[in-house]
Amino acid sequence: MAKDQKKQPRPKAETPKGFRDYFGADVTERKQMLDRIAEIYHRHGFEPLETSAVETVEALGKFLPDVDRPNAGVFAWQESDVPGGGSGDWLALRYDLTAPLARVAAQFRNDLPSPYRRYAMGPVWRNEKPGPGRFRQFYQCDADTVGSASVAADAEICAMLAAALEHAGIARGDYLIRINNRKVLNGILEAMGVAQGKPADDVLRTIDKFDKVGEDGVRQLLTTGRKDDSGAFIEGVGLAPEQAGPVLAFLTSKGADNAETLSNLRAAVGASATGAEGVEELAQIAEMLSAMGVGEDRAVIDPSIVRGLGYYTGPVFEAELTFEILDDKGRKRQFGSVAGGGRYDGLVERFTGQKVPATGVSIGVDRLLAALRAKGLMGGTAQGPVVVTVMDRERMADYQAMAAELRQAGIRAEVYLGNPKNFGNQLKYADKRNAPVAVIQGGDEAARGVVQVKDLVLGARIAAEASHEEWKAQPAQTEVARADLVAEVRRILG
Amino acid sequence: MAKDQKKQPRPKAETPKGFRDYFGADVTERKQMLDRIAEIYHRHGFEPLETSAVETVEALGKFLPDVDRPNAGVFAWQESDVPGGGSGDWLALRYDLTAPLARVAAQFRNDLPSPYRRYAMGPVWRNEKPGPGRFRQFYQCDADTVGSASVAADAEICAMLAAALEHAGIARGDYLIRINNRKVLNGILEAMGVAQGKPADDVLRTIDKFDKVGEDGVRQLLTTGRKDDSGAFIEGVGLAPEQAGPVLAFLTSKGADNAETLSNLRAAVGASATGAEGVEELAQIAEMLSAMGVGEDRAVIDPSIVRGLGYYTGPVFEAELTFEILDDKGRKRQFGSVAGGGRYDGLVERFTGQKVPATGVSIGVDRLLAALRAKGLMGGTAQGPVVVTVMDRERMADYQAMAAELRQAGIRAEVYLGNPKNFGNQLKYADKRNAPVAVIQGGDEAARGVVQVKDLVLGARIAAEASHEEWKAQPAQTEVARADLVAEVRRILG
Repeated sequence: MAKDQKKQPRPKAETPKGFRDYFGADVTERKQMLDRIAEIYHRHGFEPLETSAVETVEALGKFLPDVDRPNAGVFAWQESDVPGGGSGDWLALRYDLTAPLARVAAQFRNDLPSPYRRYAMGPVWRNEKPGPGRFRQFYQCDADTVGSASVAADAEICAMLAAALEHAGIARGDYLIRINNRKVLNGILEAMGVAQGKPADDVLRTIDKFDKVGEDGVRQLLTTGRKDDSGAFIEGVGLAPEQAGPVLAFLTSKGADNAETLSNLRAAVGASATGAEGVEELAQIAEMLSAMGVGEDRAVIDPSIVRGLGYYTGPVFEAELTFEILDDKGRKRQFGSVAGGGRYDGLVERFTGQKVPATGVSIGVDRLLAALRAKGLMGGTAQGPVVVTVMDRERMADYQAMAAELRQAGIRAEVYLGNPKNFGNQLKYADKRNAPVAVIQGGDEAARGVVQVKDLVLGARIAAEASHEEWKAQPAQTEVARADLVAEVRRILG
Repeated sequence: MAKDQKKQPRPKAETPKGFRDYFGADVTERKQMLDRIAEIYHRHGFEPLETSAVETVEALGKFLPDVDRPNAGVFAWQESDVPGGGSGDWLALRYDLTAPLARVAAQFRNDLPSPYRRYAMGPVWRNEKPGPGRFRQFYQCDADTVGSASVAADAEICAMLAAALEHAGIARGDYLIRINNRKVLNGILEAMGVAQGKPADDVLRTIDKFDKVGEDGVRQLLTTGRKDDSGAFIEGVGLAPEQAGPVLAFLTSKGADNAETLSNLRAAVGASATGAEGVEELAQIAEMLSAMGVGEDRAVIDPSIVRGLGYYTGPVFEAELTFEILDDKGRKRQFGSVAGGGRYDGLVERFTGQKVPATGVSIGVDRLLAALRAKGLMGGTAQGPVVVTVMDRERMADYQAMAAELRQAGIRAEVYLGNPKNFGNQLKYADKRNAPVAVIQGGDEAARGVVQVKDLVLGARIAAEASHEEWKAQPAQTEVARADLVAEVRRILG
């Protein structure tokens, strides 16, 4: 009985670990950016697709790409209350937008146009350990073409990505799309006489370190091993020096322009048919980009990019922002990658047994938004509404009429709805709301048919800078006829 | 060993039961509607809030409003892999947008402006038995003001709801917002001498049947009982006939205008102080709506609306669409309710122990969208892109240049990316894509510097209606100089 009377402890008002809320401009700025990107996707013939957040674990596949622990990384649960008894399906939150596309492409293969171009924008969930700036729910923004084996589809995606970045606000010259081809790499491995599987993976992992350790470092890592900066010895892959030749030729094949790079690559792949096919595909992509008006200053063949290669089967691409920003420690660094993608064939095969060629790109929503903010293109303090203050509680209808008139004129406005007793609190509220203007009408003003209109932006500047005389003159506050309220507010807002 | 060699069965390509996908116009039309509503909310000083889909079960509360089985109705799971061991938190998908608002209002109470006006739009999840047209993931669209005890907040929400419906496309005259007050009902119960708890609930349930059974039916149900149309006897609540008086006065209090309704209500609540307060609040709301230019043709006091009353503590409101549509069986019926809300005080109290007054509205996204479609305001077949067909596979760059030029001119366009061998398939594809125009250029045309531009809309009409002579004249297909491609497509698109 004593137990029954014990009060329940209060629940904690907290987001689950690794989740967060988005307020005001955080929501509208992301939306604005995604709307701009969607415009470009739409203009390229892509159709929106919104799948549900929940999929069966069976349809989703039991693991994330590049993670081979079953069930790792997803939020999953088993259906209960199954009609007719028995154990229910396992359901899970989608971990990306590609797995649901695979399911849709299989489920609706007789109804969808083929090729099927679709874009998708929305949250995905990862059951991973959260860290600073790493959340377990985040947005993805994907565009894919399913059912086209032509590298024209890849070229189109690259051109569209360039247009999307520019339409979102990234200036030409501030980004570069770099394009490579998995087949070229396979050709290089063939030319080296390295077998698929672990030996090839070892070589690919080493290639990925080229940016960090350079040509000599890669040569050492491919052969006998290398001492790193800390003095620790990293074991080599164990290739003979002559075997390392093709991969080094490949890594240093970037020329002054696409033509030179392609010529270097042709030499590097030697007699490998796969390699030659890969180079030919890159040549076609380069030709088509040029035909679409996308110059090498915007998208360029670059053999140094290596993306999750186990997943991709043909062209791969990555968009990098080339301007510098200051990092947490105030050091300059390049902003880096904001989007990537490529061609993959296994998409629908899991479901139907048929290989369906597909290619696509994913834009890192949070990173691109951070880039736009870093360039000052977003994230200025958003202007709040005009605040109509309340001097006489019983004249609330009058204040609401003022706000309604302002809105009618397209001006964002609200009446103060807290306890109006303390007028200072109302001005503090207006300040917190980032209000550009406050409207004030006491009984005396109402009787005279006027309102006070206070320019809060000018007021703040005067408070910070003005002399006592200027301040006393109160240039930031104007009395106007009630009928002129909208005109005066409009004048102040400019 | 034989077992290991057995092939894994293929996964089923299916959405989980009760979930669905949204394609093309389904996505863009909803987005367009929500964007229009958001514009109005923003203009009224409301700020967007996007909470995560996942909350702790503790913060969410263990049950849906109006459902008192613990954990019923939500998708929930327990966190695994807790760092440091121990059993993890129970997490769940949000079942509405109000519970997360409560958590946010408590968690950020020192940072948010007070009052806090916020809107939220997004999916919510219900672990319920799906039915035809009933899905386990659906959109909600809410606006709430937290921290204002003033009925000015309720009036503002009603005015904003009217503006939002109109901005979304519902014409004035096609909707009506009806407003009631829980306090008036409480006053009626007081005047009847009915105790809170079960007796009051019995009376409220009976009131809810007024629309169906009328005044006499309610009188019977409140007293001795009633035979329904099937002849079954429904037991009465057991009140004395004179006790039923106030509630019948209340139910029939709707007058020719707000003034008459309010006067009838004042009489119905008799000496109840709570009832008088409730009527006074309704009078204030009526006055403020009028000041904001919202006439009784748009929002009106109506005692007959009764909404999930256990939850609400003051004014309640409901928006009804008043035009008729044909139901599944071809019968005319009123479209009915598309939004509702009211004042509630328990929101933040669970977390902090402090009562925080709040009021808000929720628009039924799917219902409003259905209404716009029923009125022909949305859901016309969306026009597809211009399709540039592929006659010569090796001239893909030329075709992509055409599409790029069209897009540059703001025209939605795409190149056919399937296997181009069968030209008929390309035209079938264009048809499936709802393409208004197809562009065709074979080697001969390329040599002469021209393109064929086919008006598919006109072509379809001719195929359906034209005589053989008209058809032979092929007025739907025009040959133009390559340089005039964009101009010709623009001419056809009008």
